[in-house]
Amino acid sequence: MWHQREIRLPPQPRGFHLITRAVVEALPELGELRIGLAHLHILHTSASLTLNENASPDVRADFERWFDRAVPEDAPYWAHTDEGPDDMPAHIKASVLGPSLTLPVRDGRLALGTWQGVYLCEHRDRGGARSLVATLWGEP
Amino acid sequence: MWHQREIRLPPQPRGFHLITRAVVEALPELGELRIGLAHLHILHTSASLTLNENASPDVRADFERWFDRAVPEDAPYWAHTDEGPDDMPAHIKASVLGPSLTLPVRDGRLALGTWQGVYLCEHRDRGGARSLVATLWGEP
Amino acid sequence: MWHQREIRLPPQPRGFHLITRAVVEALPELGELRIGLAHLHILHTSASLTLNENASPDVRADFERWFDRAVPEDAPYWAHTDEGPDDMPAHIKASVLGPSLTLPVRDGRLALGTWQGVYLCEHRDRGGARSLVATLWGEP
Repeated sequence: MWHQREIRLPPQPRGFHLITRAVVEALPELGELRIGLAHLHILHTSASLTLNENASPDVRADFERWFDRAVPEDAPYWAHTDEGPDDMPAHIKASVLGPSLTLPVRDGRLALGTWQGVYLCEHRDRGGARSLVATLWGEP
Repeated sequence: MWHQREIRLPPQPRGFHLITRAVVEALPELGELRIGLAHLHILHTSASLTLNENASPDVRADFERWFDRAVPEDAPYWAHTDEGPDDMPAHIKASVLGPSLTLPVRDGRLALGTWQGVYLCEHRDRGGARSLVATLWGEP
Repeated sequence: MWHQREIRLPPQPRGFHLITRAVVEALPELGELRIGLAHLHILHTSASLTLNENASPDVRADFERWFDRAVPEDAPYWAHTDEGPDDMPAHIKASVLGPSLTLPVRDGRLALGTWQGVYLCEHRDRGGARSLVATLWGEP
C-alpha cells in the first residue's frame, strides 16, 4: 500500500519548530497501516527535518543557539554570499541535520519514542512556506 | 514481506559502541530477503545511530573526543540545564548523527561495505537501556 | 517492484561533487515507478552523501571550507592517526553527513526540490573510486 502527498507548511521564523501534529493530521492514511514506514522529505536546501525532544521549548531554542555558533554567519571564508549572510550557513545546517526522516509505523500510528517529535528546522531569516513530500508504504 | 520488532540494548557507558552483531542476531528474518532494506530507529532523543569504521577502537574513542569538543557541556548559552550538563549536548549530538539508519539487504544479509559497522552512540553519562524499532521489508 | 544495483563512481578530488545526473543515468528503472523511493547507500566510511544546492560551485567549495574547520586535521586529541591526517576527520565528517539518502520518486522521476542535487562528499585526499548500492522500490 502506497500513499504520497505534498504537505505545505506555513512560513515560520528562523529556528526549530515542532510539526508532529501538523504532519500526522495531513496523513490520515497512516491509520490504514499495520506495519510500515513514513518518509518525510523537505524540498529545500536551507531548511531541514530532525527528530528531537517534544516537550521543552528551551531545547529548541538551545538548538538554534548551538547551530548559530557552530556555523557562523560572519566567517571570513564564505564565498557564496550573494543571497545574504544567513544563506550559506543555512545550506550547511540543512546538510548536517538532513533533508528527510524515515519513521516506523505500527498499528496505524507513528512508532516514535515518548519524547520524540518532528522538528522543522528553519535556517533562513525569511524562509517562507516550506513543502514536504510525504510517502507512506507498508502492510494494511 | 514485512517484519518489525523491538530490539532492547543493555546500558552502555557514554561513547560509541559497535552493535552490528547484536542487531543482526536479533533479526533472523534478514535471511529471508533476497533484495530489501532494514530500517533501524532509536526511540530516544539523547542517543543516536551511525555507521562507521568497524575495526579500530581508537576511531570510536576519537568520535567521543570530537563530539565532546564540538558540543561543550559548559557552554554559557544553554537554557535547558535541568536534566544535568550532559543532557542538552546529548540532544544536539543525537540530531547531528540522526535517529535512524536505512541499510540495504542483499541475498539475506546486510549489504554493507567491508569496514562499515553500526554504532550505538550513547550521549548521556547514564543513558540506561536503549530500544530500537527494526523494520525489514523486501522481496523474498 | 524492486531493483538493486551497484553504482561505481570514478575517483574525485577531496571536496563536494554533484552526482545527480550520474545517479539518474545509472538507474533507468526509475522510469517504471509511479510512486516509490530510491535509496542510495555509500559503501565507505570516509566519504558520504548529502543533498544540497545544485547550482553554484561556490556552495560546494564553502562546504569543504566549513567542514575542514569544524573537523581539524591537526587536533592534538586524535588517537587514530595511522592512516594519515585526513583519515580520522574523514570518518567524523562521513557520520555527520551520513552514508545514505532516501529520495521520493513520483511519475518515474526523483521528486526533488528545484535546487536539490545529490552530492558525493569525498573526505579523503585520495579516496579512489567509490561504490554505492542503489535500491529502488515502489508501485509501477
